[in-house]
Amino acid sequence: MKISIAQLNIHVGNFQKNTEKIIREIEEAKKKGSELIVFPELAICGYPPRDFLEYDHFIHECENAIVNIAKHCVSITAIIGSPSFNTSNNGKRLYNSAFVLSDGKIADVVHKTLLPTYDIFDEYRYFEPNAEFKCIEINGKKVALTICEDLWNIDDQKLYKVSPMEDLMEYEPELMINIAASPFDYEQAQERLNILKWNVNKYKLPLVYVNHVGAQTELIFDGGSLFLNENAELQHLLPSFEEHTQQIETEKPSTLISINNNTKIASIHDALVLGIRDYFSKSEFQKAVLGLSGGIDSAVVAALTAKALGPKNVLAVLLPSQYSSDHSIKDAEDLVDNFGINKQIVPIESIYTSFENGLADFFQGTKPDLTEENMQARIRGVLLMAISNKFGHILLNTSNKSEAAVGYGTLYGDMCGGLSVIGDVYKTQVYELAKHINLEKELIPVNTIVKPPSAELRPGQKDSDSLPEYDLLDQVLYQYIERSKGRSELIAMGFESSLVDRVTGLVNRNEYKRYQTPPILRISPKAFGMGRRMPIVAKY
Amino acid sequence: MKISIAQLNIHVGNFQKNTEKIIREIEEAKKKGSELIVFPELAICGYPPRDFLEYDHFIHECENAIVNIAKHCVSITAIIGSPSFNTSNNGKRLYNSAFVLSDGKIADVVHKTLLPTYDIFDEYRYFEPNAEFKCIEINGKKVALTICEDLWNIDDQKLYKVSPMEDLMEYEPELMINIAASPFDYEQAQERLNILKWNVNKYKLPLVYVNHVGAQTELIFDGGSLFLNENAELQHLLPSFEEHTQQIETEKPSTLISINNNTKIASIHDALVLGIRDYFSKSEFQKAVLGLSGGIDSAVVAALTAKALGPKNVLAVLLPSQYSSDHSIKDAEDLVDNFGINKQIVPIESIYTSFENGLADFFQGTKPDLTEENMQARIRGVLLMAISNKFGHILLNTSNKSEAAVGYGTLYGDMCGGLSVIGDVYKTQVYELAKHINLEKELIPVNTIVKPPSAELRPGQKDSDSLPEYDLLDQVLYQYIERSKGRSELIAMGFESSLVDRVTGLVNRNEYKRYQTPPILRISPKAFGMGRRMPIVAKY
Repeated sequence: MKISIAQLNIHVGNFQKNTEKIIREIEEAKKKGSELIVFPELAICGYPPRDFLEYDHFIHECENAIVNIAKHCVSITAIIGSPSFNTSNNGKRLYNSAFVLSDGKIADVVHKTLLPTYDIFDEYRYFEPNAEFKCIEINGKKVALTICEDLWNIDDQKLYKVSPMEDLMEYEPELMINIAASPFDYEQAQERLNILKWNVNKYKLPLVYVNHVGAQTELIFDGGSLFLNENAELQHLLPSFEEHTQQIETEKPSTLISINNNTKIASIHDALVLGIRDYFSKSEFQKAVLGLSGGIDSAVVAALTAKALGPKNVLAVLLPSQYSSDHSIKDAEDLVDNFGINKQIVPIESIYTSFENGLADFFQGTKPDLTEENMQARIRGVLLMAISNKFGHILLNTSNKSEAAVGYGTLYGDMCGGLSVIGDVYKTQVYELAKHINLEKELIPVNTIVKPPSAELRPGQKDSDSLPEYDLLDQVLYQYIERSKGRSELIAMGFESSLVDRVTGLVNRNEYKRYQTPPILRISPKAFGMGRRMPIVAKY
Repeated sequence: MKISIAQLNIHVGNFQKNTEKIIREIEEAKKKGSELIVFPELAICGYPPRDFLEYDHFIHECENAIVNIAKHCVSITAIIGSPSFNTSNNGKRLYNSAFVLSDGKIADVVHKTLLPTYDIFDEYRYFEPNAEFKCIEINGKKVALTICEDLWNIDDQKLYKVSPMEDLMEYEPELMINIAASPFDYEQAQERLNILKWNVNKYKLPLVYVNHVGAQTELIFDGGSLFLNENAELQHLLPSFEEHTQQIETEKPSTLISINNNTKIASIHDALVLGIRDYFSKSEFQKAVLGLSGGIDSAVVAALTAKALGPKNVLAVLLPSQYSSDHSIKDAEDLVDNFGINKQIVPIESIYTSFENGLADFFQGTKPDLTEENMQARIRGVLLMAISNKFGHILLNTSNKSEAAVGYGTLYGDMCGGLSVIGDVYKTQVYELAKHINLEKELIPVNTIVKPPSAELRPGQKDSDSLPEYDLLDQVLYQYIERSKGRSELIAMGFESSLVDRVTGLVNRNEYKRYQTPPILRISPKAFGMGRRMPIVAKY
């Protein structure tokens, strides 16, 4: 069978644009002689639609789009994901469904059985699980059609009591098709391939897998749609991080290919670039502004943004104070020149003095402390937001995951911004990103990479005055956050108990700060934000 | 049977304090001759523990607490909620359980069947639903023990395919006990009573119901634990918004009581006071600071905070600009005097000038716009946060729900704060709250209540320049947010289509602002925050 795999970048809720794009792909596939075209999970409305699903109006828009798209499905079948109403009188009000469209109408509907409800997923919040199984038929071929998680209940980690493929095997399918919304993290591509191969090996059936591509606020979908033959050999693999439609032939052997051997850090780089680009295009903004300190974090964010939006759409603002070192300003200016981005300089010293004067009476008799450091960061926040407001640029946040974890940052100061670009990237990984960006040429000044990190909010300040060295800190954070290792387990792993108490205490106490941070582009299996939901006033 | 109903205020994750409190109540109940003492759902760790549940270490702390508490259960039985490990090799890793403790050990364990996963609830994120039913026996009496949602699958709104009580009835129980974590909203007390009565009427059994009291960040638990006799008559009702333990006798008829007839606005008032108090006590802070503008929002927040923390723990800061009217300053000062709270005045004009000067070159040739208004709000934010940092006061946010809905507020300006007190209270309800506070005496100056609302960020500005009148706006917002009515439904209700498009468009476009607001005390059935989860870059 000739099948078009449509790995599309869908905009949540943008029914008009999404429908046009889907119809265009169907017409194109018809011209190329495809018998079937397959779109991703919930492609009608985008993934994740979140609580828009609670609006009947939103579901009706999905239904209308399905009807319109079906009209184009003549001499071709389309499979496409959409929410649909549960018309029985109990259970959740919706299903997460795959519609089979042919002869100009809805030929069949299959519902999702396994509803991921962990990490960033909330599917049982909206959907009733399917409990009835059947194969669909396309041009005489029996197909086991499943939706994403339906294939993920594999032997060694059974989260669910049913496995849809086991029920479907009774109907003797000849092909598996899985439509998915499986977001990127730096481990996901490999895990996904393992799980898909596990299914092919178990059920001895070829598999067509179609995933989303593109970023939806914090979630970045990498695509990686593929076709595995019945020997679990990778026969087709669509490019990562790119919208792409490809025609495959299920019976025709083709050269086997190996999965792309991008390094982990190259994948993170490409994911972040896509994340920035889609945040801007989907919110209909072109230009970004960020504060450039001369340090590594803002340098890397500037580099990624220049790549995503083009250097002429990036405005870097230097906001020096009396504590800014000469080398910081020099490093920032070198970076601006290397990337060809725009630059402005707004010194903050006289503004800072006006705050000192305004608070002088009230603060009489008190000693300088973190208040004054925070105030500098917040003055920079006000200036950057004023520039953002005045010129319609989105302010990008440059905090990294290590800082966000331990609360080493100023709320409403350096924590401002519409999008946090590297808030899921540990400091040690930020250095790796910088080296990756510099692979061919010194774009980020080497001095920015080699000097000791400093917030430069008081004379001679270094991050290591307040925090453990990042090499060590990041190890503890990774085990605590990504691996959910608690106090006793961390100590058993060899970390000193005083270090463990200090780091986990900082992470827990700073939940209130993270609650108010911008959405963070997610590149790890456990990112701050929708994937990690913590109480604020807890004591633990 | 003599039963102690322990309606406790538990602190999430504070195992030491919680365990001590629970043991104290058990000892007290023993002295009073109770045969049984019943604690709320997940009382061991507090509700909601959220992703702390993903830490084995956290579950082990729960297990240890259970063992310690069980030792005190000699000559008395205790029922208490705790998470527990699912030891089978499939399904979610935990159960939401009720432990029956007697003879110094764990006598029985019952798991929750129906796992609420909607609005603010995420239980299927963590827990495997129970599928095996049995009654427990206490001093020879057969008891149908269920957990919260287990009783909520009633006829006209069946969200689930099973109803635990129907299975339990086969074992011929004589009494129902339900332990709960059912948070307050202004409709919940009545709905809760209706549902509990529905169960008693259906199963013809008396019911002991034990709920949490106290606030956990945004969620406010009102208690309202009760005993219904087998005729569904209310025989005992514990006080709302107060920690309280009461002994009841299930066989002994007592005077019937009617549910407290607090007005809706009085309940909202009491809920918010508890919400503020617990936010401070559970995060171990005593003092609050807020900006006082002379307007209604900050006046009501100041009043609620004075009630919650005591007037001497409240610092009101007046931050006048050249656009502040004389009456605003006068109204603010009158309020300070009426409540006996502390006051400081920090004018912002010269700081504003320093920003203007700092940006003069860069902004040359541009016209004044929202940028300059936002800048004033952000200068106030910087000053308030400096005071918060310097003196260890928590800054309270004073935005109301109408503003939060349509984005009528400045991110990092008036949207700053550790806690949003009235972010779930529409502007029209804020006026009702003010009148309620003034019931006995003019505490909030009448002028604050009667003057037209204004942000005072430019000369002669009024809210109604930018927004529909609040009476109308709040109606549309209520239907869109609380009732999930979409565009076509709103128009069918009689709202003008241009108004509907404007208001829903503003709500959707301002999701990015709400993403960064402080946690909001929840008093409605649909509050911004964990109960309403929306995409940011969607177009709908």
